[in-house]
Amino acid sequence: MLIVLASDCTPGDRQRVVAAVEEAGCTWTPLQAGGRTLLAVSGAVERLREVPLRRWPGVKKVIALSDAYMLASREHQAEPTVVNVGGVKVGGGGFVIVGGPCAVEDEASLRAIGEAVKSAGADLLRGGAYKPRTSPYAFRGLGLEGLKLLRQVSQETGLPTVSEVTDPRHVEACVGLVDMLQIGTRNMSNFDLLVEVGKSGHPVLLKRGQAATISEWLLAAEYVLAQGNPHVVLCERGVRGFDPATRNLLDLSAVPVVRARTHLPILVDPSHATGHVGYVPSMARAACAAGADGVMVEVHTHPAAALCDAEQALLPEAFTDLVEDLRLLAKVTRSARPVR
Amino acid sequence: MLIVLASDCTPGDRQRVVAAVEEAGCTWTPLQAGGRTLLAVSGAVERLREVPLRRWPGVKKVIALSDAYMLASREHQAEPTVVNVGGVKVGGGGFVIVGGPCAVEDEASLRAIGEAVKSAGADLLRGGAYKPRTSPYAFRGLGLEGLKLLRQVSQETGLPTVSEVTDPRHVEACVGLVDMLQIGTRNMSNFDLLVEVGKSGHPVLLKRGQAATISEWLLAAEYVLAQGNPHVVLCERGVRGFDPATRNLLDLSAVPVVRARTHLPILVDPSHATGHVGYVPSMARAACAAGADGVMVEVHTHPAAALCDAEQALLPEAFTDLVEDLRLLAKVTRSARPVR
Amino acid sequence: MLIVLASDCTPGDRQRVVAAVEEAGCTWTPLQAGGRTLLAVSGAVERLREVPLRRWPGVKKVIALSDAYMLASREHQAEPTVVNVGGVKVGGGGFVIVGGPCAVEDEASLRAIGEAVKSAGADLLRGGAYKPRTSPYAFRGLGLEGLKLLRQVSQETGLPTVSEVTDPRHVEACVGLVDMLQIGTRNMSNFDLLVEVGKSGHPVLLKRGQAATISEWLLAAEYVLAQGNPHVVLCERGVRGFDPATRNLLDLSAVPVVRARTHLPILVDPSHATGHVGYVPSMARAACAAGADGVMVEVHTHPAAALCDAEQALLPEAFTDLVEDLRLLAKVTRSARPVR
Amino acid sequence: MLIVLASDCTPGDRQRVVAAVEEAGCTWTPLQAGGRTLLAVSGAVERLREVPLRRWPGVKKVIALSDAYMLASREHQAEPTVVNVGGVKVGGGGFVIVGGPCAVEDEASLRAIGEAVKSAGADLLRGGAYKPRTSPYAFRGLGLEGLKLLRQVSQETGLPTVSEVTDPRHVEACVGLVDMLQIGTRNMSNFDLLVEVGKSGHPVLLKRGQAATISEWLLAAEYVLAQGNPHVVLCERGVRGFDPATRNLLDLSAVPVVRARTHLPILVDPSHATGHVGYVPSMARAACAAGADGVMVEVHTHPAAALCDAEQALLPEAFTDLVEDLRLLAKVTRSARPVR
Repeated sequence: MLIVLASDCTPGDRQRVVAAVEEAGCTWTPLQAGGRTLLAVSGAVERLREVPLRRWPGVKKVIALSDAYMLASREHQAEPTVVNVGGVKVGGGGFVIVGGPCAVEDEASLRAIGEAVKSAGADLLRGGAYKPRTSPYAFRGLGLEGLKLLRQVSQETGLPTVSEVTDPRHVEACVGLVDMLQIGTRNMSNFDLLVEVGKSGHPVLLKRGQAATISEWLLAAEYVLAQGNPHVVLCERGVRGFDPATRNLLDLSAVPVVRARTHLPILVDPSHATGHVGYVPSMARAACAAGADGVMVEVHTHPAAALCDAEQALLPEAFTDLVEDLRLLAKVTRSARPVR
Repeated sequence: MLIVLASDCTPGDRQRVVAAVEEAGCTWTPLQAGGRTLLAVSGAVERLREVPLRRWPGVKKVIALSDAYMLASREHQAEPTVVNVGGVKVGGGGFVIVGGPCAVEDEASLRAIGEAVKSAGADLLRGGAYKPRTSPYAFRGLGLEGLKLLRQVSQETGLPTVSEVTDPRHVEACVGLVDMLQIGTRNMSNFDLLVEVGKSGHPVLLKRGQAATISEWLLAAEYVLAQGNPHVVLCERGVRGFDPATRNLLDLSAVPVVRARTHLPILVDPSHATGHVGYVPSMARAACAAGADGVMVEVHTHPAAALCDAEQALLPEAFTDLVEDLRLLAKVTRSARPVR
Repeated sequence: MLIVLASDCTPGDRQRVVAAVEEAGCTWTPLQAGGRTLLAVSGAVERLREVPLRRWPGVKKVIALSDAYMLASREHQAEPTVVNVGGVKVGGGGFVIVGGPCAVEDEASLRAIGEAVKSAGADLLRGGAYKPRTSPYAFRGLGLEGLKLLRQVSQETGLPTVSEVTDPRHVEACVGLVDMLQIGTRNMSNFDLLVEVGKSGHPVLLKRGQAATISEWLLAAEYVLAQGNPHVVLCERGVRGFDPATRNLLDLSAVPVVRARTHLPILVDPSHATGHVGYVPSMARAACAAGADGVMVEVHTHPAAALCDAEQALLPEAFTDLVEDLRLLAKVTRSARPVR
Repeated sequence: MLIVLASDCTPGDRQRVVAAVEEAGCTWTPLQAGGRTLLAVSGAVERLREVPLRRWPGVKKVIALSDAYMLASREHQAEPTVVNVGGVKVGGGGFVIVGGPCAVEDEASLRAIGEAVKSAGADLLRGGAYKPRTSPYAFRGLGLEGLKLLRQVSQETGLPTVSEVTDPRHVEACVGLVDMLQIGTRNMSNFDLLVEVGKSGHPVLLKRGQAATISEWLLAAEYVLAQGNPHVVLCERGVRGFDPATRNLLDLSAVPVVRARTHLPILVDPSHATGHVGYVPSMARAACAAGADGVMVEVHTHPAAALCDAEQALLPEAFTDLVEDLRLLAKVTRSARPVR
């Protein structure tokens, strides 16, 4: 940590800063640079993070030299994390395809979709039972009953499942019924919920918040990791943009950025990102070529009758074609050379 | 609701749409416009909201003609809502000033700040006990102990209190200890929490989400109102912007927009919006002149030692000056004419 | 066009609207829908665009039913435009690779880079001579001298060229020296410049503005097309985002959106979008898989010595690998099925 | 400037950096901080700006210690700039009100509006003759004829004028006919135009770009200042936001930020920012209370017939009320104390 002193810093100001540094158990050296005096601080600088040094008289600015997310960083762990979701490995070089309806609606439609997803060659089944909806008057999901249906179709098809949890009071029940707990974009900063899924030790799919920087997203992952749960997969699903042409603004460059910063795997959700069935295959292929560890795609046998997000669900035939394209692409791009 | 048919709509396509409309108990009339055929639908169109008509074959687009937030809208209630917070009226023409620390840190500092806030002439005392923090390693608040300290200082100073609740499991305890429950920006779309504070019937201060449109914000308010709790106050605190010059991007035009659309009162939080103590007074005065129902400002007797958001807390003397300015401004601007 | 009348619309209000519609030579029919009265207007509705009907007493809203960009729209022209740039075809199914330095710096370095780009297998050579720079103290390009160097290296390597024009007074000279005129992101709404390049009849590469919606971008293209110049290629290069992790926020979903709306070809510039050499290959591959008509990539033999944008230029070896990857990917993805 | 060396920096890497620093005529000192080695560089560091040190092997990052805009900065000039526009002083403590139509449409309407603006008590008359319009099919202004009408009404009313220039070829003619040249939001980064108005020595009103940070805006001002033209006034007019509730997102906190960083005056344009006549007075009052040096407001005697931006123009009576409110507010807020 570098503390840049102001040009009008008094001896008293400086003494106060130095005392705080030493009280935190850190060591320091005075430096001269660019006509300014700096204090270079070493040691347990995280203890100083709560001391608002930059607000103190005599301090011009404070420059951090290390990442704030420790457990999630590549510096902490160089080899990629591989998360085991009911036997399916996410991360580490493979390409995982998750398919399924936005929401679990009823047994028959879920079974039909589940079988279609399985037969298309996907790896995991998605389906929401607790649905966060912008309007209180929209369909909010079947809750526990929905999870039980998901469990049943999972057993019939052999596909492990992903489903969203929105309330810390539901985590325990969800853990018993789904293979991977999804934290949705609206709850990325619901820290009480993150702590609860962290404690559960269950695989977690952490979607990026609508206005979250990648650093904030990794800090949200850090909440889960810090509870001793290393089974975290990230999922880029678009951020808030200014152009109504798409539902959200898919930030695909998050894939290489995340790859450079963390060992955690990353999926891409082109369905929520674009919000238009016509744009989903293009963005799914792009995600694969960008180097993502997989995609999560909405599939519905009767999109026109879907209870939520109907505009973005692929028909089974389109999904089957897409899976085929992606398997081919993954083969080609996985062998692409890293930049020299 | 207007259903615009596509140019290639077949008789079968059209029959399917008409059947859905009639099944929902709505009536319809065919129209010709701009070379296209439209169906004008009347009646309980909200029943059609879950039917993804725009995805159906033969449908070009669907145009809604009414607001999605019903209880919050000015059409539903013309006269302004006035929320009673421990005897202090928010909304209806007055100007309410909330002051206090970002977080409750300890008894002595809270008492000192509370007394300063009271003596400056503020109306309500703020102080966080459950703090959502971006990093899991930051100070996250004193929890229940913090709320008890807040209750105590409230009784000593006579100032009713506002404090954030982040977990549905804490709502009941918070209701007993604070006069107004704050829903923070990160939890604006935590719908389980909104339902819980809705059920409590307690006054709610609903901050705008970092990437929320004003419509989404009013729909979040609708979640609380739909539980039978009419005591909702909105709070603009800045949205995510692209310029690091300020912590967030204060959207002051939300004040007249909200005023035009809803009967709910609106406060402005210039402290979290700007993140810099030097910009707070300017934006607080602007909020008053814009017609807000009040401001919420961070105050600390020793900002340099504050455990969170130290850069944005005013000293008691600066806060006292600001309160004086605001009382004068409120007098001048409250008598300003509405636009002719 | 649909004109929705307000519930308090008087006969006089309505008469005024009707008169304006008829004065514009349009026809109209009254409709009843959702308890409201609407006027469906047909004919030359563009003549009404300048009449601010929605502001008139008695009018609730005005709904447009057709695109504002006519020449650029797919409805106007179904088959894809193919732009011939010095013999290289852009659009229509192929995949074009543009490489070169950010700025033309001197003859030797440009020749070295040009030869490397040629030998890597690229199709076009880029190089800026008029550089818009955020700071007036930065290197702003060699101007006409730079263009002459570019012409020379183009003749030596056989690669046609792309170079930016920033001032309407330079268009004529540029036309004589480069094969395709680039309009940069900062000048997308410099309409005097667009008109001038439109008049030139020369191929134009139109970059998306930093805060431009896709509709605004297509309207900028319409400025060029409306001058009788059909040789327009679009280039997505990232929009302004809130996350400092990348220089801009690459909106790759613009590729399928543009494809759906217009017949014009689209390139992607991953260098300016990400601003980091490490992220360029990943995003170039993603652009190819997304279905773009090509990419434009910065290449430099000595990035560390480049006079601008040094952090984002690939070394020749990395560029050679990338070209090879892209040619393979293009083969695979060009045969991918369209969505069923 | 601080150069932070990477942990794997070799002696050769370091030597290369040191050589570049010395070649630029700067001096340096080695420092140890946070377990890293840094080089603190003093002297003419701007000469190093074009050397991409951060891309060099062995360099982790480069930290600048001074502002990039020199002439615009408060450090360069402490006392506020006052710009004389035809005898009206902008900046330095007064509050200037600019009113007028979006576009000059014809002599009669301009005269009527000009007289109304004068009689309401405004200081300057605005009116566009060169209109940048998103669509090539919209009314683009009367050009030189419009400027002559503006000059005529200016002489009749005694109000000095502001009008936009969009093309470097028009600057000379504009200088002869208007008192202040406006650079619109779309041309903030049209550097050839900035250089031209800089050379003219005429007062310039520089609007903020739709996606410009405040730093980029001040660098655009620096382009004008660097030509030896100190007569620059800034104008905040909203940035691109994600909420369609307002036309743009007015960033009023730019007022205190700009005040802290530069000596240049700043106006606010609530008309283009909000795009709705109903929100303009509220935001104009907020701008005054925030400490702006003035506002620029669109006024039209027959908004319903205006050829552009009709939805945001105030009627003369509303403008008269607003001017009265603002004069009162300015008196109150100009005496408000600065933050202690």
